[in-house]
Order: sequence, then structure tokens, then C-alpha cells
Amino acid sequence: MALLYKADPVRGQHWQALFAEHAPDIAWRAWPDIGNPEEVEYLAAWQAPDNVAQRLPNLKVLFALSAGVDQLDLDNLPPDLPVVRLLDPGITRGMCEYASWAVLSLHRDMLRYRQQQVARCWQAHLLQPAVNRRVGVMGLGTQAQQILATLAPLGFALSGWARSAHQLPGVDCYAGEQQLPAFLRQCDILLCVLPLTEQTVGILDRGLFAQLPRGAALINMGRGGHLVEEDLLEALGSGQLSGAVLDVLQEEPAAPDHPFWEHPQIVLTPHIAAMTQPESAFRVLLENIRRHQRGEKMVGEVDRLRGY
Amino acid sequence: MALLYKADPVRGQHWQALFAEHAPDIAWRAWPDIGNPEEVEYLAAWQAPDNVAQRLPNLKVLFALSAGVDQLDLDNLPPDLPVVRLLDPGITRGMCEYASWAVLSLHRDMLRYRQQQVARCWQAHLLQPAVNRRVGVMGLGTQAQQILATLAPLGFALSGWARSAHQLPGVDCYAGEQQLPAFLRQCDILLCVLPLTEQTVGILDRGLFAQLPRGAALINMGRGGHLVEEDLLEALGSGQLSGAVLDVLQEEPAAPDHPFWEHPQIVLTPHIAAMTQPESAFRVLLENIRRHQRGEKMVGEVDRLRGY
Repeated sequence: MALLYKADPVRGQHWQALFAEHAPDIAWRAWPDIGNPEEVEYLAAWQAPDNVAQRLPNLKVLFALSAGVDQLDLDNLPPDLPVVRLLDPGITRGMCEYASWAVLSLHRDMLRYRQQQVARCWQAHLLQPAVNRRVGVMGLGTQAQQILATLAPLGFALSGWARSAHQLPGVDCYAGEQQLPAFLRQCDILLCVLPLTEQTVGILDRGLFAQLPRGAALINMGRGGHLVEEDLLEALGSGQLSGAVLDVLQEEPAAPDHPFWEHPQIVLTPHIAAMTQPESAFRVLLENIRRHQRGEKMVGEVDRLRGY
Repeated sequence: MALLYKADPVRGQHWQALFAEHAPDIAWRAWPDIGNPEEVEYLAAWQAPDNVAQRLPNLKVLFALSAGVDQLDLDNLPPDLPVVRLLDPGITRGMCEYASWAVLSLHRDMLRYRQQQVARCWQAHLLQPAVNRRVGVMGLGTQAQQILATLAPLGFALSGWARSAHQLPGVDCYAGEQQLPAFLRQCDILLCVLPLTEQTVGILDRGLFAQLPRGAALINMGRGGHLVEEDLLEALGSGQLSGAVLDVLQEEPAAPDHPFWEHPQIVLTPHIAAMTQPESAFRVLLENIRRHQRGEKMVGEVDRLRGY
């Protein structure tokens, strides 16, 4: 019985060492050296190879090495193959740090002060108390809930929106298409951590921006596919939005002539909000393998219809 | 009986309205229209006028409209005049927000990513877990303790240093000159919120930087007088320090040719970490006036010998 790893080779060595130490019964294979394909029961991958079923006839589970699985092309995977996403507490911590930093950056006018530093201008601007700053999170899954819990002690007025109904202490929760306008109307800072699905692709567009209070700000920590990039430029140009912090783009890496690089109201980071930490992620992955071996339910199994 | 206000006139109107509503028994005077000087028993000021004793013969308390009182020239005030600093919870909240933002900026390599955005470079760098990042706070007063409490849930390894001994849960506390080297040796990010006194002026200098781990980073939210600015440039140039976030300078506003403006490893903000919020500050000030009227101890009375 073997596990086949197909992702970044440098981090792969780290994973391999952890498996050798803590799970010597599971043989390690690193793509493209797959050995005897019939022995491979588990695939841990960022992207799956083509023709998975033919290549790995005894594959039992595909473990995505990411929290989102939109990069996997679920329709081309065998329909009965369980796909499990990686709910690494290290990723969640990274998302919480980035979210706090991005919300504070916008709350405290740091994009404006960044411009002022370039312009050598020493000028203070009035400060809003956090209690008057309404932060709305799109997505209410594990990561979003942790992000909200991290923002709560800073005193922000918190709300959240998701497809299905949620109840969270201290968070005004909105659900479904119907309540989206009411949610957007009260977001001074909108933070997107939605999964990327057919329903959410391009959701951050002109029509959505128009429903935010004038001068609102955007944080996209979901996927580049959520954002219609030309609509953001338009909304910043008209003053409908005042600023954006973006960690993801439609195409990554961004082309050198991408207009976001030099936009004074955009902070752009190279998809670094969170990274899988082998130490913490390994424990989660191994625990799921053991659960599968014991015939138990795994954590993070993807609903192929929902896409997350 | 009157209170004389001597600070920013625009915010003064806000203060005046609050006094009119909540303390109509206290007559309001705004500098320079002091009315009958003999009626003035309380002075609320950023800086005191010259010859306070002659000008205001019946002055009973000087209320500083700031948390620090280094701008007041204590030696030129009547020696028996109580000086009270403003412990405004609005200021403390502002300091906590700025400190979280600055620590996260350095922890998450945001100065480097700011440079990369200018250079149109899309490159991720490895991420340190917060638990491996040692944040040390210089100063352990009210503000520092709140800052440490705000940083704690993010998982940083926290320590603090002050002149006198402290005990704080979850914080390694160091005290006095003797323990300063041991404190500095373990600070990846050093955050200064000391009061500015004869003992602390110029404390952030070459000798101190040399005791930090190589590549450490600095946050100065104290006063500009704490930092020897040319020593910071040298430490950044040599790589002893990797970056700095500064909210205060020796001379404010910074001159247009100040070298910090365009330094890629310095984030400079125009003394905006915290601002007095009239709503919350008013309550604190009025409560102190009432305490004084009742003959009780006021909150924030300055020890003239210590200077804070």
C-alpha cells in the first residue's frame, strides 16, 4: 500500500520525512516516480494527473493539499472517488493573520498613508472607532468562522453571508441570494473567503460593488476567479470603492503589465495569505488516512455537487 | 469655577458640547479667551501656557490631553500643581490596533511585499508560524499591557521589559538595566511604547540594536525622542535590522528631505497610532474633575520625579 505525492517537490521532502518517522507502514511515492501503480491507494496532490482511474486502478482517496478544490476539475475525476480537502490549522492561522492585517490596513487608512509616504506628506486623518466599522465576511465555513473570531476582540461590527443559514455569536448572519443585498448594504469592509464554484465565479462584480455603501473597501482572500478585475478598477475610479487588498488574481503570477501593480488604492500580495505547514498538515492528513483505514468518516470530504 | 481648554480648536467644539450637556456646572473657556483668570480652576491642555501660576492664580489641576506628558516641560510648572495624564480608552484601543497592524506587517513580510509590488514581482516567501515569532514590548504600563493582551490570541511568543518588575500571564517579563540585554537577545520584533524621560531618551540606538538578533525589526510607537534616527539607518544598511514601522519622529512633521520617507525598509505614518476620542476621553476627564472636587485620588496623576 502506497501514498503518491504530487505537488511542490521541495516541500515533498518535508512530507516524506514526516511519513517515514510517523507512518512507516505507508510507502511514499513522489510524482512522477509512481512505482507499481497498483499499490497506490492514496493520492495527495495539488492537481490530479489526467486519467486518474486508468493510471491508478486501486486509488481509494484523493487528498487535496489545499483548503479549496476548484483547481481539481472535479468533473473529470471518477465520480465515486472520495475527494478530501485539507483543513490544516496552519492554513487557518495564516488566513486569520492575513485577514486581521488586511482589515486593520483598511480600517486605519494605511493605503492612504502608503501613498502619503511616497508623496512625503505628513498628514493625519480622523480615526473611526472599530465599533463603527462594519466588516462583512462572504463565506461562513471553518476559515471564515476563525477569521470572525480573530476580528471580534478588536471590536468591529461583524456580519457574514453564506449560501446556507448560520448562527454565530456576535455575528449578524445573512443567507442566500435573497439576503445578499441586505448584507452588502451594511459592509464598510467586505472580505471574501468563499469557495470558488459555478455559483460564486465572478461574484465580486460591478453589480455587487454598487450595493455596498459608497467608499467601501474590498479584501479578496478567496480565489482570483471571484473577482471581475475590470469592474474593480471601475469602482475604484468612480469612488464607489475606496481601496482593495488582494491576495489572489485571475492569472497568477500577475503579468508585469497588470494594472493592479501600480494602483495606489490596491495592495497586492502574491497568494501568501496562508501556506500549508507540513507539521500541522501532516497530522490532519495522516488522521484522515487512519480514519479511512478504519472505515470511519474523514474530515473535509468534498460534496462533489456543491464543489466544496 | 471654570475649565480652560488649550488645544486643537476644532476638537475643542466637540469637548465644549460634551461639557455643556453633561457638566453644565463647569464653565467652559477656550484659549485664548480665558475670561476672568481667577475663575479658572482646571486647565485641559496639550501644552501649558508660560507662567501658568501668574496667569491662572487659582489653578488646581493641569489635565494633559495626552497619555504622555513629555511635551509639558514639567520643570517649569508650579511644583505643587497636580498634573494628570489622560488615560483615554479610545487612545488605548488605537494603540492596540496600530500595534497589531505593525506586528502583523513585520511578521508577514509586508514591507518586502510592498517593495515587490513596486517592482512588479510576484514571489512568495516562507511563512513563520506566529509561535516562533518573539515579540518584545518595551514599557509595561496600561497601554503596553493592553497591546500584549491583543497580540496574545494571535499566538506570538511575548515578552516585555520595564524599569520596575511586572508579572503578566503569558508574558516573559524583564526588569531594569540589568535584564535589558537578556530581553533584547530574544526579540525578533521590538515594540517601543515607553514614556519619554531622561532615562529613555535615545534608548533605541546603535548599542541597543546590536543586542537584538540579526535581522530583527523595530516598531516605535513611543516618542520620536526614543530613537536615534541615524543609528536606525545604519542598522538597516548593515542588515542588523530588517525593517521598521515608525509612527513618531524626532521632528514632526518630517521634513520633505527626511531619509525615512523613501526608505524601502521603513513604513512611516504621521503620528496616527492613536488619537484622543472626545466621547471616551470626556468621561475620563470629567470623572477626574469630580474625584478632585470630592477630594479623592485622580486616575493618571503624574509622578513629577519619574516623569510619567
